[in-house]
Amino acid sequence: MRRHLLSLSLLFTPVVALAAPKNIIYMIGDGMGPAYLSAYRYYSDDTSTKTVENTIFDELWQGVASTYPDDDTYVTDSAAGATALATGVKSYNGAISVNRQHIPIGTMMQLAKRLGKANGIVASSQINHATPASFLAHNKSRRNYNEIADMFLDYRINGMPVADLMLGGGTDYFIRNGRDLVSEFKELGFQYTDSWQQLDTLTKTPALALLAETALPAALNSKQDKQLATLTEKALQLLTPAEKGFVLMVEGSQIDWCGHDNDIACAMAEMNDFAKAIAVAKAYVDNHPDTLLVITADHETGGLSLGAAGEYKWLPDVVKQVKATGRSIAKQLKQAGSDQDALALWSDLTSISLNDAEKAELLSTRKQDEDTLRKLSNKLVAKYSFTGWTTGGHTAIDVAVLAYGKDAKNFAGFQDNTHIAKKLIQYIQQTK
Amino acid sequence: MRRHLLSLSLLFTPVVALAAPKNIIYMIGDGMGPAYLSAYRYYSDDTSTKTVENTIFDELWQGVASTYPDDDTYVTDSAAGATALATGVKSYNGAISVNRQHIPIGTMMQLAKRLGKANGIVASSQINHATPASFLAHNKSRRNYNEIADMFLDYRINGMPVADLMLGGGTDYFIRNGRDLVSEFKELGFQYTDSWQQLDTLTKTPALALLAETALPAALNSKQDKQLATLTEKALQLLTPAEKGFVLMVEGSQIDWCGHDNDIACAMAEMNDFAKAIAVAKAYVDNHPDTLLVITADHETGGLSLGAAGEYKWLPDVVKQVKATGRSIAKQLKQAGSDQDALALWSDLTSISLNDAEKAELLSTRKQDEDTLRKLSNKLVAKYSFTGWTTGGHTAIDVAVLAYGKDAKNFAGFQDNTHIAKKLIQYIQQTK
Ligand SMILES: [Zn+2]
Ligand SMILES: [Zn+2]
Repeated sequence: MRRHLLSLSLLFTPVVALAAPKNIIYMIGDGMGPAYLSAYRYYSDDTSTKTVENTIFDELWQGVASTYPDDDTYVTDSAAGATALATGVKSYNGAISVNRQHIPIGTMMQLAKRLGKANGIVASSQINHATPASFLAHNKSRRNYNEIADMFLDYRINGMPVADLMLGGGTDYFIRNGRDLVSEFKELGFQYTDSWQQLDTLTKTPALALLAETALPAALNSKQDKQLATLTEKALQLLTPAEKGFVLMVEGSQIDWCGHDNDIACAMAEMNDFAKAIAVAKAYVDNHPDTLLVITADHETGGLSLGAAGEYKWLPDVVKQVKATGRSIAKQLKQAGSDQDALALWSDLTSISLNDAEKAELLSTRKQDEDTLRKLSNKLVAKYSFTGWTTGGHTAIDVAVLAYGKDAKNFAGFQDNTHIAKKLIQYIQQTK
Repeated sequence: MRRHLLSLSLLFTPVVALAAPKNIIYMIGDGMGPAYLSAYRYYSDDTSTKTVENTIFDELWQGVASTYPDDDTYVTDSAAGATALATGVKSYNGAISVNRQHIPIGTMMQLAKRLGKANGIVASSQINHATPASFLAHNKSRRNYNEIADMFLDYRINGMPVADLMLGGGTDYFIRNGRDLVSEFKELGFQYTDSWQQLDTLTKTPALALLAETALPAALNSKQDKQLATLTEKALQLLTPAEKGFVLMVEGSQIDWCGHDNDIACAMAEMNDFAKAIAVAKAYVDNHPDTLLVITADHETGGLSLGAAGEYKWLPDVVKQVKATGRSIAKQLKQAGSDQDALALWSDLTSISLNDAEKAELLSTRKQDEDTLRKLSNKLVAKYSFTGWTTGGHTAIDVAVLAYGKDAKNFAGFQDNTHIAKKLIQYIQQTK
């Protein structure tokens, strides 16, 4: 890789390395493989015009990254992926910024804190989930949610927790039998809210908002419009006064979850929520040119493709008409008073006209558990939209790297995911 | 798109447009979606080292391109894809460089010929197949193979056929009942051979080599090593003397065919054959700096992904041990003298140990037609390697754009496929 960069810089127009950006906004679409970007373009297409409009992803596109972990497989999980993206070092699947010997690997947020830079994380999952966890804590297993939440408070740099700002979900882990981490954060001077309505009461760092028991609602089901954009805007507002600049990580956490469910309508709604947060970050860079915005994914989820069953088509119009996630549709269908109500509900929620065999399958599956019904619902949406999926897990394909602002071109071309982190860490090391 | 490029050039380090390259090498991996590039990296990985080595694709990587046609679908076929890549104008699926009204759209090879630049095409399919056809001819349907072959000779610019050089397969179309196009090409002064051994007898343009009745053998089955690299080397040798430079199109035609078959071993062998041809072109650029190399795909085929069945793995070692395409395996299994011979042959050809149920299925399917047996063979290789496929057709996802040499950075970032052609046409228009 190093050799490659060198040879490129000799052959092509040399890009002079600028001074390090003061501020870094690092956005991670969990599970956001390249097909999600193509899909979102056609999903967002204004079909009244002949041309397909560029999305914000298209506009910021710079490179791609490989995602393989340091494990006996080429397919990473979110913990190893986030560890690579937060530390520049690969580890095993499940690792939260520790190596194979379970020794902690320093993260870019810890470095920022040490050097007097502000830092924060925003997530649409619980904030102690694998991706944000890998930026702030160390654990041999992503599953140790309580230990990770504890470390968010207990791991101190200059007497304070690593993060100056945390916005997302997770009261179940932070206020629990045996420990009330929220009270402890407040004692350390953290402003706190658990309410979207009172987000305005957060006026400075350090601050914490836990807006759900675990994850925030799925974007497709949420009453709250622009969830991630709202939190990103708030985070940028609170971090801007930091004298030595800041590092903010924003995760679109649930793209991955829709991918695991093979739920294309869910995925496109999460992409849309993430896109709006990117728009906030891009506008910030326009107004604060000493800022670098980098956007990537930890891995691809689901083996998504835009074409199935030998047909040369993908039908985003079918996807756009689906009004709820497969999980929500399954729950609602189970609760319907009668088969007739269930079929009417299906029509309302999906606008998909099933044939008689499919109707019968839907009704008989309604008698089974919610998971089986959810799978059938997502399978039907995939069938009618010609969406292809190959797995309920992750895949090894490369992900997109987008960048904007100061030194954005440094992220062009092919790179390993660890090199994204290494470049960012180099900038942070130049904190003045 | 135009607006996008403009805004980028204002915001980032402006890349000064250099003078047009004298020579253009344009390589198209038919069906080569981005997952094929990731797959080829792990397939090529030297597993005795900890790091995954970069492939030549990784080294040359610059951008991505959307591929949608001017049709009632977002999924293109190879004809519409090649029309966009050869002319800068989108058309309907099936179109060979004609618009919806069947009016011819000028191609970059025709422009090159008109301006006194040499041009040639190399393909591992018959040379009148959709991709090369769209560079040299016009037809309302890619299926009119004989009409297209005729036009390769009959469409004249300055009294001569469009192409100065054509290397690939296709004697069935060029020497057929009713017309012997090869004799007519010879009468026009074309050197000709139909033999790999006599490729050396081609010493100058114009020249024609038809090395198979239709397509060249699949790389995985071929006795001829480096098929496409050999032809690319020959083409560059013959085109180099051209005073005003040249435009050479090289197609890795059969990546797509492996994709349609959902045959990962076939696909990786074609990628390897294509990679070796790229290495030849890259070395040429190193020695002839006034040359631009651009590599892309017309679309993705098969919905390939590296992960299946919920497992977090993809196993290229399984793929590497497969010694023949699914088509060849099926033919050989059908011809086996006994069930025992068939099972031994399966082991020899794939090194995959089937369970009893799979053995029984293989033997019973052996009694059915070759196509059914081929599908089962490919399905078993996919299953054991955890390769995912979603369709026997094409998909709408974006493809990679690689570039190297003069003005290569002009192909960075996201672009529509028509813009690749438009940029190349702008260079050709500057022919001096
Ligand atoms: Zn996941
Ligand atoms: Zn095809």
